Amino acid sequence: MEAAISVLVSQFKQFAGKDGSSDTLSRDEFHSLVVSQLPNFVKNASDPAAIDKLMGTLDENNDGELTFLEFWQLIGTLASQHGGFSQ
Amino acid sequence: MEAAISVLVSQFKQFAGKDGSSDTLSRDEFHSLVVSQLPNFVKNASDPAAIDKLMGTLDENNDGELTFLEFWQLIGTLASQHGGFSQ
Repeated sequence: MEAAISVLVSQFKQFAGKDGSSDTLSRDEFHSLVVSQLPNFVKNASDPAAIDKLMGTLDENNDGELTFLEFWQLIGTLASQHGGFSQ
Repeated sequence: MEAAISVLVSQFKQFAGKDGSSDTLSRDEFHSLVVSQLPNFVKNASDPAAIDKLMGTLDENNDGELTFLEFWQLIGTLASQHGGFSQ
């Protein structure tokens, strides 16, 4: 499990480091991450409007940036759907 | 990323399936998962009392079982610490 967690952390950092703060994902960074890393788990991953909507639901403090833990909520939802868990 | 997410889901299911519901982790299942899968990320992973305390903080509805999303909070905290994120 630790290796898988490290992959998720390093991938987040790789995309978050492209512009501005390397601790958060900007809108563009989030788009490129979803398109390249989550093409199957995120429905309509190729539709920018769908990704904007998704970011809006995650960006709890509405600062246009996703913190790691805001991003982590998305991954949890995707993982839960992928695992077929009811909660 | 999707492969790493799948690893976390399948590992959760493997440990959750040992007794009772295969959708949740019992106290014993959680102990064996932490000891074998998170020996470095969880401090005092070999101390049962520490693991009980950890489970207490995660088990939001106090039913003695951890749902996938309750478990996912732990992984998020560990990942955030591992990544050195301030939030």
